[in-house]
Amino acid sequence: MSWERIKAMASEPNFAVLSTLMPDGRPQSQLMWIDAEESYLVVNTEVHRRKYRNVVADPRVTVTVFDRTDPYRYVEGRGEVVEIIHGDRARAHIDELSEKYRGRPYDAEIKSTRVMLRIRLDRIVPGNTD
Amino acid sequence: MSWERIKAMASEPNFAVLSTLMPDGRPQSQLMWIDAEESYLVVNTEVHRRKYRNVVADPRVTVTVFDRTDPYRYVEGRGEVVEIIHGDRARAHIDELSEKYRGRPYDAEIKSTRVMLRIRLDRIVPGNTD
Repeated sequence: MSWERIKAMASEPNFAVLSTLMPDGRPQSQLMWIDAEESYLVVNTEVHRRKYRNVVADPRVTVTVFDRTDPYRYVEGRGEVVEIIHGDRARAHIDELSEKYRGRPYDAEIKSTRVMLRIRLDRIVPGNTD
Repeated sequence: MSWERIKAMASEPNFAVLSTLMPDGRPQSQLMWIDAEESYLVVNTEVHRRKYRNVVADPRVTVTVFDRTDPYRYVEGRGEVVEIIHGDRARAHIDELSEKYRGRPYDAEIKSTRVMLRIRLDRIVPGNTD
């Protein structure tokens, strides 16, 4: 399972589950919109969210991307958040994601500020539901 | 978000992402068939799998169950594997799961032996894709 394959899946409007580590080391997971650019997977969140605070404290994450039409077709990428992008670029990026998934700019309330997390994968694991 | 709600979602043929902890503490995730009985979520795997070895070493997991017709509708349950069931009951259970999801007994190769993991949740978190 190659980077090109997971990048292609992340570039389509598929969903991903992002798992981060709580301060006590237990895992936490959430469904996310997912994106890819250059050699990174990218998610977009807000700075008050638990998942953001988690990756600031411990950047190790895993991202499971699954085909929205066939969840048996999925792939897991393990890696680290290596770059955090704030500001106008992050705000514009949530509009791009919303266009991709919803066909319109982001219109939900922004409670704090948007932030992009760039994730570098070091292990890509093909899906196995067993 | 109540136990009854996540139990109902887990009783239908919805999918779940199970996150476990690798020996070095990083998260690992996989798409799983999911079940519920009594006061537990239940998954079924095999004893040679990474996820099984992970929960034997550290039982802390999180399970994200999402509606197969609308992934925005999901719920995360955090907890621990509190019981591991081997033997005939675990073998029969994978047939039950296969009937639920595929409409037929389990017919994939069993590479080692099947095992049921009973998960007790201590935190149930409503889904939030942001």
